[in-house]
Amino acid sequence: MITEHDCIKLDQNDPLLSFKDQFDIPKNILYFDGNSLGALPKTTLANMQNVITNQWGANLINSWFNDGWLELPKIVGNKIAKLVGAEENEVVVADSTSINLFKAIYSAVKINSDRNVILTTNNIFPTDKYMAKTIADNLSKTLITVNDDVLLESLNEKVAVLLLTHVDHLSSKINDMQNINQIACKKGILTIWDLSHSVGAMKVELKKHNADFAVGCTYKFLNGGPGAPSFIFANNKHNNKLQTPLPGWFGHKKPFDFDPNYYPAGGASQYLCGTSGILGLTALDSGVSLFKNVDLDHVRSKSVSLTSLFVNLINQVCANKFEIFSPINSHERGSHVSLRHERAKEITDNLVKKSVIPDFRPPNIIRFGFAPLYMSHIDVWKAVMIINEII
Amino acid sequence: MITEHDCIKLDQNDPLLSFKDQFDIPKNILYFDGNSLGALPKTTLANMQNVITNQWGANLINSWFNDGWLELPKIVGNKIAKLVGAEENEVVVADSTSINLFKAIYSAVKINSDRNVILTTNNIFPTDKYMAKTIADNLSKTLITVNDDVLLESLNEKVAVLLLTHVDHLSSKINDMQNINQIACKKGILTIWDLSHSVGAMKVELKKHNADFAVGCTYKFLNGGPGAPSFIFANNKHNNKLQTPLPGWFGHKKPFDFDPNYYPAGGASQYLCGTSGILGLTALDSGVSLFKNVDLDHVRSKSVSLTSLFVNLINQVCANKFEIFSPINSHERGSHVSLRHERAKEITDNLVKKSVIPDFRPPNIIRFGFAPLYMSHIDVWKAVMIINEII
Repeated sequence: MITEHDCIKLDQNDPLLSFKDQFDIPKNILYFDGNSLGALPKTTLANMQNVITNQWGANLINSWFNDGWLELPKIVGNKIAKLVGAEENEVVVADSTSINLFKAIYSAVKINSDRNVILTTNNIFPTDKYMAKTIADNLSKTLITVNDDVLLESLNEKVAVLLLTHVDHLSSKINDMQNINQIACKKGILTIWDLSHSVGAMKVELKKHNADFAVGCTYKFLNGGPGAPSFIFANNKHNNKLQTPLPGWFGHKKPFDFDPNYYPAGGASQYLCGTSGILGLTALDSGVSLFKNVDLDHVRSKSVSLTSLFVNLINQVCANKFEIFSPINSHERGSHVSLRHERAKEITDNLVKKSVIPDFRPPNIIRFGFAPLYMSHIDVWKAVMIINEII
Repeated sequence: MITEHDCIKLDQNDPLLSFKDQFDIPKNILYFDGNSLGALPKTTLANMQNVITNQWGANLINSWFNDGWLELPKIVGNKIAKLVGAEENEVVVADSTSINLFKAIYSAVKINSDRNVILTTNNIFPTDKYMAKTIADNLSKTLITVNDDVLLESLNEKVAVLLLTHVDHLSSKINDMQNINQIACKKGILTIWDLSHSVGAMKVELKKHNADFAVGCTYKFLNGGPGAPSFIFANNKHNNKLQTPLPGWFGHKKPFDFDPNYYPAGGASQYLCGTSGILGLTALDSGVSLFKNVDLDHVRSKSVSLTSLFVNLINQVCANKFEIFSPINSHERGSHVSLRHERAKEITDNLVKKSVIPDFRPPNIIRFGFAPLYMSHIDVWKAVMIINEII
């Protein structure tokens, strides 16, 4: 039997407890949607003011060189690299996750051009599938989508590229990067990992686990702000074979030569395409920089602690009222928990009225996100009590 | 003989004079680079603070629906539509100009798929050419680039798509949209116009002149901020034939159904791809909104007045020291003037030291931009005097 006091004690022993003070979170709400839109870091506004007033306003065009704007997508990329187990210059920030998926899938297909299949799973986020499909159609490849349970047996020598999510956007199931990459690598398959629901919520080890490409969203656990620019990783072992489908002047070796011919910058830098959006990057930098002194093992432990508490409390307080749609084994679960209920939409609406903010996913899922940097166990307790009231 | 007094008089008769007060421009510089990075509108910071603090910070995920974020790329698009002679819902804001070029070229090639040639000019901005080239390569088309002087005779029945800049980024030469589109249309060629150097500096009449697609940059004369998101126009006569190469969830008919299959939103809306970058859009909205009560005929008249004054003063004060690389006839000239000089780099560096900010374009061009909303004739006088000192 878990008590409110147990939750308070868990918070007292939380090494990340003080991080909550780094965010501006409305006091009157219980926010369980940091996996959709992360909260506002306290530094963001001042950083944005500085860039707007003292850089853009005062230095104007000179800021591109003198205030480091040109380097910003690489600087923030290098900060993210540390969170995903990548090396310096393997990660850049540019464009949206959708567009970075396009770049990564295209590049991987071109490297493995003697093979015909792009493989992904049925449950991957829709955009991932849309992008894989359009590339398959345009490059005369075949997109095959399979259920998770037959994924491993589907890895064969026809597969050029395997596109997977690290943590499932709906179920929260973790795909085992190490094991899958090992098998894929043996079969000569290139892997692309969508880290949108894992980056900032757990340690990711792209290089150690031999991933080829990765992309990820930065407005979730990285707290980069609404529609913050995305990141893309390319393993530097592919540097001399990379080919971007979106050659823009910022990805050129020498952008300010205005060369009529495209010569890509080395490695992941060629995935910079158009002019970098400095305001979005500035907000993202504020979010990512909060991770500077954070131990990702602590982040993962707390994430597991929060999601486990939630699952246990739901079972304790409103057993059998919901189907828990996420893995029960915490090793297989990311940093959100989905509950299934036929009246999910109505329950979500009522929770929001009571200032508990999860999100609804049609047709029957309520998704609760647990952002380890700013959530506490007592929040979970309070929310489950309100869920129980409503149900 | 033009005198300083003449310049002061021109300013006194300027109907746009008061607009200068809408911008925060450092008092100690003469800014001739609004065609590269527009100045900071006074409203931008407050609007950004509001979105960061009162929307993202306080309302978090609910802002997507309750604070109008979802509609923002269309709302700002509709404001831009008025500046380029497009109808409601023909323009959306998303991604970079580079990426919007990719979307437009691909879509046009697909509509005219029985033809093989993408035609553009040698002097177009490099990214435009890079994007045309990658599409040509991937869709087995041929990219042909020609010099301006043989453009019209190159318009034949093999050409699927003509990609042109409205105002040349280097020379400032205006391409005659009406005449070129008329000829292209007769030959069954679809046109794509890059409005980066014209939008916000002159009236553009995409529909009246029967343009098929257009894209444009918003951080120049629209003052949207560094790397502000770009816009894309698709003539609604093509609505049922549009096909985006970058199908993302925000361009889906029903994004929040998370449909595994892609069904595009109608018309230009399908060019929304990933999650919209709200911070960049907010700054852009501040810039674009300044045009609400502006008569674009006044904008163009003032632009012509400023560039003509500059050309005349250069001829008066430092005749024969520079080659004027831009059209002398103001009808053929956009809102910047380029001077050619073998020591252009050195002269630019010295101008910057004296707080006159143009930009240098290799190998030998100094480009002076004239942003009609915030520049005055006396600025031009002062700058030319300093140019003369340096030379």
